[in-house]
Amino acid sequence: MTQKLKTQLTERLGIQHPVVQGGMMWVSQPELVAAVSEAGGLGILTALSFGTPEGLADAIARTRELTDKPFGVNLTFLPTLKAPDYPAFIKIIVSEGIPVVETAGRNPEPFLEQIKSGGALVIHKCTAVRFALKAEAIGCDMVSIDGFECAGHPGEDDVTSLILIPRAVDELSIPVIASGGFADGRGLAAALALGAEGINMGTRFVVTQEAPVHPAIKQRLVEVDETRTALVMRSLRNSERVLKNDWAEKIIGMEKEGAGISELAPLLSGKNGLKALREGNPEIGLLAAGQSTGLIRDIPSVAELMEKIISDAAEILGKRLPGMLA
Amino acid sequence: MTQKLKTQLTERLGIQHPVVQGGMMWVSQPELVAAVSEAGGLGILTALSFGTPEGLADAIARTRELTDKPFGVNLTFLPTLKAPDYPAFIKIIVSEGIPVVETAGRNPEPFLEQIKSGGALVIHKCTAVRFALKAEAIGCDMVSIDGFECAGHPGEDDVTSLILIPRAVDELSIPVIASGGFADGRGLAAALALGAEGINMGTRFVVTQEAPVHPAIKQRLVEVDETRTALVMRSLRNSERVLKNDWAEKIIGMEKEGAGISELAPLLSGKNGLKALREGNPEIGLLAAGQSTGLIRDIPSVAELMEKIISDAAEILGKRLPGMLA
Repeated sequence: MTQKLKTQLTERLGIQHPVVQGGMMWVSQPELVAAVSEAGGLGILTALSFGTPEGLADAIARTRELTDKPFGVNLTFLPTLKAPDYPAFIKIIVSEGIPVVETAGRNPEPFLEQIKSGGALVIHKCTAVRFALKAEAIGCDMVSIDGFECAGHPGEDDVTSLILIPRAVDELSIPVIASGGFADGRGLAAALALGAEGINMGTRFVVTQEAPVHPAIKQRLVEVDETRTALVMRSLRNSERVLKNDWAEKIIGMEKEGAGISELAPLLSGKNGLKALREGNPEIGLLAAGQSTGLIRDIPSVAELMEKIISDAAEILGKRLPGMLA
Repeated sequence: MTQKLKTQLTERLGIQHPVVQGGMMWVSQPELVAAVSEAGGLGILTALSFGTPEGLADAIARTRELTDKPFGVNLTFLPTLKAPDYPAFIKIIVSEGIPVVETAGRNPEPFLEQIKSGGALVIHKCTAVRFALKAEAIGCDMVSIDGFECAGHPGEDDVTSLILIPRAVDELSIPVIASGGFADGRGLAAALALGAEGINMGTRFVVTQEAPVHPAIKQRLVEVDETRTALVMRSLRNSERVLKNDWAEKIIGMEKEGAGISELAPLLSGKNGLKALREGNPEIGLLAAGQSTGLIRDIPSVAELMEKIISDAAEILGKRLPGMLA
């Protein structure tokens, strides 16, 4: 691939292309992560997918067997009473010299000093300008900001990427990565036009050859259009955007009838989604999916996908748009 | 203004800049419409704001006193039993030689032949790819596609502009105008990157010197951020995005408690919103407002606004983006 795009993201992370594969529970496994980094983007392992700090260390080792390019680790701070042993996970991240940590969920402040002790850059993933400002204030190096259209947790404000990105760029001094709704070169070009320094993609990377997801799930994501996602858990103020399958419709129906967390909990367990991902039955659990699923029409290798995104974006930036200047 | 952007929209409509001021009930009055067209965009009068075909003819005459540049007329087909006399309005549009008609609401097919008999181009405003395809099939010349973030009626699919625009561009042969969430030059550049031929703006034009809206309402729209809009009438499957004021919160509360159309109707009357617009009390009615309100920070003249949008977009297209190509 000859074409490159140079932004603050590529320069600060030392990567070729301003494209991040955001941490996805279960899906961000070594093979996918290595493929993204090898293709010039930034792959990110999800620490909590590996159960224990030793599991993470093993995943890092496996990723390094597949690529010598930089990759990151995601740490999601969950609102649970029995928290994972975050300091032990961070100890691995530091001792392994991981260059980029993506934090998500709750405020990472209690762990930031430890994370940065090894020199890692911290990208905090958040869903509103006020949270991005907080991340900047506590010393995060970049933010990845998620619009309403994103897979997973968009927050409760329902503000779309088209608004959130320029708003965050206006308010922050640190670089902004656009996340939520991006799947192709047009989206990358649009994000850069809005002032972002790159894009984060989730759903698009799920639908690649290297993603550790059953082919039937990838095929379903190819087939559905942009209207086939839905928010579950709105009633719990913990909204999650998922594929609008039987499972999600059941949950939404129960929410409408006033079901509480105790009734909903069995349906919300991540184990069901993991089972769906592995067995290839798209109806038996919650599957995070963004509206970008409407733009996904094939199951390429990560290298093919990256090549297409960058060459399409370069054509837009180098030809389509300048050609409109009279 | 020296800078110009040339797209299918500017070429087909014979305007300088690819920026349309979408039809807004009550607000799209001659002074605003003429200012937009005079500044090189396309201003659009809303036929139904003038009550009768004679009222529309009078508004057209007043607009022509203010500009000799092209402007359009919006015709919204409402789902009411007592329909306005659309053929009589269209007769005025045709006899006055209006070059562009923006249709909205229900399928314009029954009126299309009459509208086009005078040679007008028809831009159909819609909220989903399937409606855009229908518009193309029946002979509309362009579509203006409204994302979830738009003011007024976004439909019930909740798909954002970032997804809808490239999806519509992929499916249609006719030009696509991006609508919903646009307020500045960055948004214009992003829309063009996504494949649109221009943008439609509503809320941004409400907050200009020439909009016939009480200064206190404009000031409120400057002050609120992107989280201060809400959808009302979701329970009626006739969602409308409005300023999240006391009035809207009351309606949403009633909807949550199961109120039906008969209880809600008195609060939904457009007369309350019109009173708010005129008297400058932003709490006494529904005021359509898009999430772009978060990006609106001043009350410029239309000419100043257009100059800034075009020069910012040109800087992005001519410098920021090409500068990223290594």
